[in-house]
Amino acid sequence: MKKVRQVNLPVEDLPTRWYNIIPDLPEPLPPPQGDMTAMGRTMIKECLAQEFSQENWIEIPEELQEIYHQIGRPRPLFRALNLEKLLDTPAELYYKAEGLFSPTGSHKINTAVVQAYYARKQGLQRLVTETGAGQWGTALACAARITGLSATVYWVRAVYKWKEARRDFMNLYGAEVRASPSENTETGRRLLKRDPDHPGSLAIAISEGLEDALSDDKAAYVLGSVLNHVLLHQTIIGLECRKQLELIDRYPDVVVSCLGGGSNFGGIALPFLGDVLTKGKKMRFVAAQSESAPNLQGEYRYDNADYSGITPRLKMYTLGHTTDMPPIFGDGLRYHGCSPILSLLRNRGYIDTVAYPVDEKYVFESAKTFLREEGFLPAPESAYSVAAAIDEATRCRESGERKVILFNISGHGFMDMEGYRQVLRM
Amino acid sequence: MKKVRQVNLPVEDLPTRWYNIIPDLPEPLPPPQGDMTAMGRTMIKECLAQEFSQENWIEIPEELQEIYHQIGRPRPLFRALNLEKLLDTPAELYYKAEGLFSPTGSHKINTAVVQAYYARKQGLQRLVTETGAGQWGTALACAARITGLSATVYWVRAVYKWKEARRDFMNLYGAEVRASPSENTETGRRLLKRDPDHPGSLAIAISEGLEDALSDDKAAYVLGSVLNHVLLHQTIIGLECRKQLELIDRYPDVVVSCLGGGSNFGGIALPFLGDVLTKGKKMRFVAAQSESAPNLQGEYRYDNADYSGITPRLKMYTLGHTTDMPPIFGDGLRYHGCSPILSLLRNRGYIDTVAYPVDEKYVFESAKTFLREEGFLPAPESAYSVAAAIDEATRCRESGERKVILFNISGHGFMDMEGYRQVLRM
Repeated sequence: MKKVRQVNLPVEDLPTRWYNIIPDLPEPLPPPQGDMTAMGRTMIKECLAQEFSQENWIEIPEELQEIYHQIGRPRPLFRALNLEKLLDTPAELYYKAEGLFSPTGSHKINTAVVQAYYARKQGLQRLVTETGAGQWGTALACAARITGLSATVYWVRAVYKWKEARRDFMNLYGAEVRASPSENTETGRRLLKRDPDHPGSLAIAISEGLEDALSDDKAAYVLGSVLNHVLLHQTIIGLECRKQLELIDRYPDVVVSCLGGGSNFGGIALPFLGDVLTKGKKMRFVAAQSESAPNLQGEYRYDNADYSGITPRLKMYTLGHTTDMPPIFGDGLRYHGCSPILSLLRNRGYIDTVAYPVDEKYVFESAKTFLREEGFLPAPESAYSVAAAIDEATRCRESGERKVILFNISGHGFMDMEGYRQVLRM
Repeated sequence: MKKVRQVNLPVEDLPTRWYNIIPDLPEPLPPPQGDMTAMGRTMIKECLAQEFSQENWIEIPEELQEIYHQIGRPRPLFRALNLEKLLDTPAELYYKAEGLFSPTGSHKINTAVVQAYYARKQGLQRLVTETGAGQWGTALACAARITGLSATVYWVRAVYKWKEARRDFMNLYGAEVRASPSENTETGRRLLKRDPDHPGSLAIAISEGLEDALSDDKAAYVLGSVLNHVLLHQTIIGLECRKQLELIDRYPDVVVSCLGGGSNFGGIALPFLGDVLTKGKKMRFVAAQSESAPNLQGEYRYDNADYSGITPRLKMYTLGHTTDMPPIFGDGLRYHGCSPILSLLRNRGYIDTVAYPVDEKYVFESAKTFLREEGFLPAPESAYSVAAAIDEATRCRESGERKVILFNISGHGFMDMEGYRQVLRM
């Protein structure tokens, strides 16, 4: 009998609805506070509706299902048998290969194509966003292009300057990529006048993007994490995993993923968290974070989603929106706050967290172990998922428990070799 | 009714046998000539047997099928609907996503894991090879590691020096990567004594690899293209495609891929060429090449597989084994000779060829068009496949023919952005 190493779904078994956990939450989700005018005016209408929807299941339009097929969905689920053997664990380790099978290298494309699709339906012509590490900017550039829209990406100048390959990648898709601060906005011009070499920040990029989108009634400002509708779209990950595990008669005892704003963690975890809330399932959810930004260990309170306080305030776990966070290679995890949905669930005790040291040695070593056993190269952010999954499996070796551990590899590392080189001193 | 954009096979429908075309060829395959001692002594025994096998179908051992699952096989087949629309062609364009869904970024892993598997069965401990562009070296490093062997890669020094990320990638797998010429062999030491900065060449790297493997009875010397057993292993590509097209009631009229030594072209084409030879199917096969190395436009005669003439001579289409070939980004296509099997079929009129200009503008522009419509980033070599597929589809627009065109994208371009940047002047 052959051992199961991969489970895939037939293309026609792609889930046709996203799961919206909001109506199943143990208490009503606290609404945003503050001035919603700018956000409201620049958001895609369908996304705004989804943000507050009380429907449990939201249909994925047929044309969008086709686009999911186009970008390689469903994506395979793998069993990490070699890794299990190396760890000598009775646990079963399953990982979802999100980034590794994505055209732009990460799970971000799952919501980017949805937002682009709805924007086009609404008659918009351009999507505007900001990006830090660059994964979200690339996904948006791709999504806009393949749905026939244009895209403008404000990219923190300090990162824009050295990530040449990723910049080329966005340009290839035809996106307008602007180092931020830029000459394109009032905000940018003011800052450049003061300092022509201003390094920029995510907050400045958000300000510029919003200003740009507000000045063009055919443009929308879009976001790649934190918000409810973004997590909703990402539930396609967990919904596929649940079907795939059913095919081999398994159900997870532990779900693990890295967490920055929460989009990939929510994507894989929410469908299973729904089972906990509505079907009384018992399982453990582990968010892998960095000590640079252990937002789930912060305070649960209203805070801004951006540095400079332009956006409305969200009830979430936060380190404070002006907190300095040491740089790490897993830059996608370096964010002060966490999705309101996940924050509420964390607050009610449904989500555990672990934060790894800022030197990143342990997480990159874990990713290297994974690579050497399973063959695939994780992105720096996904290295945190791998580390936490290995920790869980090691605990099972000690306790003798045959747990089913499910984890997400949200991105591949082909364009991030610098982190491996520096941290592992290659 | 949803449009088909992707077809995948259930994991359990992975082909369980490779197709060996040798007994179906229209005439016996001319055997190699010259001294076989060194090659014979350093080759893996099972691969040597497969090289001359007269069996039509060769079983893929179960454990190896599991390894194929581990590295993400079966891989999806996509229909390039957006591209068809842009080209306004009545043709249907299907592409196999080989590299894009491969742990090391190309189809090379398909034979690397097989060779590693047989080597381990034989009790060997180490695999030795040479690499030029680096795709084959990476695949071998991965395959050796996940099957529990060690690997030594002799890498042309001139390339070794600038492809830092790919070097790190091989090192991460634990491979011993040596800039060639190296201090590790007599050949290398002699050359370094003369010139400590010797840039090396593929021929020197082969000499060093052979010398290294000959001095260690637990080592084998392995190759990633040209030879019959390599093409045999790669038929998994075409066999999957045939099943996938059957699922949607299609059969190709044209099969297109890029061709250097012939491993990815043979991989996708041989099962269909078998249908032509044994079932009287009519179809067209197009090998996309560079004017830098249009080997299928050379002479059909015995020639060495390497520059310095150490290896046995093979009957093949060749430009001459000492010919200088201008550098191109699609370095994997820059080879003077072509697989003996494909050469024989070319000589009998079964394979057409097209060679694109050395400036690579047309092929990179084609790859950019593909990326902007379908989302995926092809490797420079695969850009030639895309260009030829687009040309075929354009011809169908002119003739009005509703042909089914199948092409292979053998590698992804995440680590090759430099080519896009320079050629497209980004």
